[in-house]
Amino acid sequence: MPEAHALFAGERAPGSRAGSLPTMLDLATRVYNHNFKIDPIIRSLLDTDFYKLLMAQTIFRRHRDADVTFGIQNRSRSVRIADFVDVGELREQLDHARTVRLSRGESTWLRGNTFYGNRQMFSADFMDWLEGFRLPDYELEARDGQYVLTFHGPWIETTMWEVPALAILNELRSRGILRGLGKFELQVLYARAMTRVWEKIERLKRLPGLSIADFGTRRRHGFLWQDWCVEAMREGLGEAFLGTSNCLIAMRREVEAVGTNAHELPMVYSALAEDDAALAQAPYDVLRDWQQDYAGNLLVMLPDTYGTTGFLAHAPDWMTAWTGIRIDSKDPIEGGEEAIAWWASRGCDPHEKLAIFSDGLDVGTIEEIHAHFHGRMRIGYGWGTLLTNDFRGLVPDHGLDPISIVCKVIAANGRPTVKISDNPSKAIGPADEIARYKRVFGTGEMAAMPVIV
Amino acid sequence: MPEAHALFAGERAPGSRAGSLPTMLDLATRVYNHNFKIDPIIRSLLDTDFYKLLMAQTIFRRHRDADVTFGIQNRSRSVRIADFVDVGELREQLDHARTVRLSRGESTWLRGNTFYGNRQMFSADFMDWLEGFRLPDYELEARDGQYVLTFHGPWIETTMWEVPALAILNELRSRGILRGLGKFELQVLYARAMTRVWEKIERLKRLPGLSIADFGTRRRHGFLWQDWCVEAMREGLGEAFLGTSNCLIAMRREVEAVGTNAHELPMVYSALAEDDAALAQAPYDVLRDWQQDYAGNLLVMLPDTYGTTGFLAHAPDWMTAWTGIRIDSKDPIEGGEEAIAWWASRGCDPHEKLAIFSDGLDVGTIEEIHAHFHGRMRIGYGWGTLLTNDFRGLVPDHGLDPISIVCKVIAANGRPTVKISDNPSKAIGPADEIARYKRVFGTGEMAAMPVIV
Repeated sequence: MPEAHALFAGERAPGSRAGSLPTMLDLATRVYNHNFKIDPIIRSLLDTDFYKLLMAQTIFRRHRDADVTFGIQNRSRSVRIADFVDVGELREQLDHARTVRLSRGESTWLRGNTFYGNRQMFSADFMDWLEGFRLPDYELEARDGQYVLTFHGPWIETTMWEVPALAILNELRSRGILRGLGKFELQVLYARAMTRVWEKIERLKRLPGLSIADFGTRRRHGFLWQDWCVEAMREGLGEAFLGTSNCLIAMRREVEAVGTNAHELPMVYSALAEDDAALAQAPYDVLRDWQQDYAGNLLVMLPDTYGTTGFLAHAPDWMTAWTGIRIDSKDPIEGGEEAIAWWASRGCDPHEKLAIFSDGLDVGTIEEIHAHFHGRMRIGYGWGTLLTNDFRGLVPDHGLDPISIVCKVIAANGRPTVKISDNPSKAIGPADEIARYKRVFGTGEMAAMPVIV
Repeated sequence: MPEAHALFAGERAPGSRAGSLPTMLDLATRVYNHNFKIDPIIRSLLDTDFYKLLMAQTIFRRHRDADVTFGIQNRSRSVRIADFVDVGELREQLDHARTVRLSRGESTWLRGNTFYGNRQMFSADFMDWLEGFRLPDYELEARDGQYVLTFHGPWIETTMWEVPALAILNELRSRGILRGLGKFELQVLYARAMTRVWEKIERLKRLPGLSIADFGTRRRHGFLWQDWCVEAMREGLGEAFLGTSNCLIAMRREVEAVGTNAHELPMVYSALAEDDAALAQAPYDVLRDWQQDYAGNLLVMLPDTYGTTGFLAHAPDWMTAWTGIRIDSKDPIEGGEEAIAWWASRGCDPHEKLAIFSDGLDVGTIEEIHAHFHGRMRIGYGWGTLLTNDFRGLVPDHGLDPISIVCKVIAANGRPTVKISDNPSKAIGPADEIARYKRVFGTGEMAAMPVIV
């Protein structure tokens, strides 16, 4: 792995004023060299989102042996991934990821680091388990131009596949598209992409009181590119850059690892519920468990799994003590207004509360949201795909435009899982179960919005 | 010199499909690191233009001990170089250049290589001299925001300073301007400049029968940048890219070293002339000596030193056997038409003749010239400053816009030298001598044109 070596070995090169640059050499050469050897995409178990580890600890403590299936779904059906990502290469990458173990230095970092101001966020028994962990087996077949990639087994194991599986698919797709380009075409491609990211950062700089993090691991163009984007955000935004969801980059670049939690928790909790009454409680059970495990800025709820409106309406009063709400599938202005109204209705001062926006953000939407809400509540942005994978228009035929690919929980203990969200375009699950969930959660009619990324 | 090492050591890195990329790492890191140590600009005596060596051999054979003074002149007076290039740094760089000797490998390359199809272009006695050569002393003072940098001594020694002195001043200026930028600002600066060069190359690709070379050593942004531009030209243009004037890059990158000859030859020959009759012959004496030393594609005359029109009118018939004409200070369309008319008037077929355009070229002018002359004669382009130093507008206040800085011969054996050229803005010499030369050469009135670069 000479490229990764070159990238990281020089981090504090003697005589340099500061850390090494993630470079166009690394980017273009690495892409250029992909044709003749395996160049592993996942080289560390920490090359995942921080919230996977947070969720894993909660799962480890309560439901580690629940039998949970995850599956890849490409919502951009028109992009036939299986046509240009070779199945052999895909298997090679997945198999390589299965060989990776937590290194001693990585374990030390997780055990010793301060996250969100808290030391020893991960308990000794969880760390012991993580040190012995390897990604479990997978099932793979190609069907109608798409890969059907599923992970079946104990929740604590299958949950760990989500981010690496997505990162592998996205990076193999990039490599496939770039394979035909010459050395300098590649350099200029990256030059243009770098210029684009930097121009976005220059626009973001102008936003007062900005607080933004990189959430782009799963849909990134590639690991080195994400690393470059993080460093660019740090240099360009200074204190306004909160950190990255990627644990490996956070460790190596010494920035904050940040994250909240995801739909899989309420989806599995709900699937495990024995009856409708338990189902109605399940999303709140998630939050109750979560606040036992974590505190402070990690108390950010994700209310949209079965519709935000019903979730907030039926929320127990103790939830008003939570720091914030993540707005992920509703129109951001509408979702933010709903949060403010809810806090106000429960006697909270929205100025002390935090809304985290994370759905399909780009600079334009961030500017709009900021213009609308700045000064009315605390705001954070989790910027994903269009930070770490905006190569739109840089090769012909939209070949590098990002696709909306997800790895979602499908079933738990033999029961199908359901997600409704605030955007019907994102609904998941069998129709009869969706109907049951809608009834239980009082989910009303919602306007469908196009899924951006 | 770890950066240069990194650049060249990897040229044929194991496992790579082809040579290494001159990289944004090298470029941005090298610029970024300039603040704390000396980073030599001239690291090889071959980091000069090929025509300096060709001219040096002619000088070595006939006028090696003529006492010749060269001086730096910044025609862009509004750019006060001495205000942002530290005199200590300048001395360090000039002094370092004086320590450089021809290496064994460099000597082998000059002795063994084929230039323009000819082996052993450089004679054994010249090579013996060159192996022992070091750049001579210099005189430096700052005056009114400009550096007065002069080289005084035997012509064969002082002639060798022209290109390294200009390259040092131009690169120190770039470094001074870039010093205040952050790591990523630098990367994005280079990303934008790379994109710009590549877009120019993409336009040039469309020109039928193009033949173009890099002439950008003296005014380059920096050595690594020139190297990148040469590689980009090679990848982008293929056979249409003839080679580079820079011997070091030609050697390391295995491209052709190309060049013709320059005004210093007729200027010194003319200054050495004992009377007006000898003066009138001097420019033709240069060509007579030159064709004894070189043949074929190297027989490209530079007719404009004292006005092209008079030069061609009085040319002896043997000059019609020469391959071509370099058009350097006249409007290129006018100059090309004049060449065609001259060849026709002397019974030559212009289709077999070569015109080399080399004055302030950029893609737009190349396109115009090509549209006008393609198919009427052979055409070559020597693309200089706006290939290797087009950072216009990439930092505020035109800070990186190229400047028109030259290193010209001032005196020979105590007599002032004179250059008139086809553009009065480029005239050099004392007024009374200019008047005498105009009389001797029958130089008429000419329209002044702005000097671009």
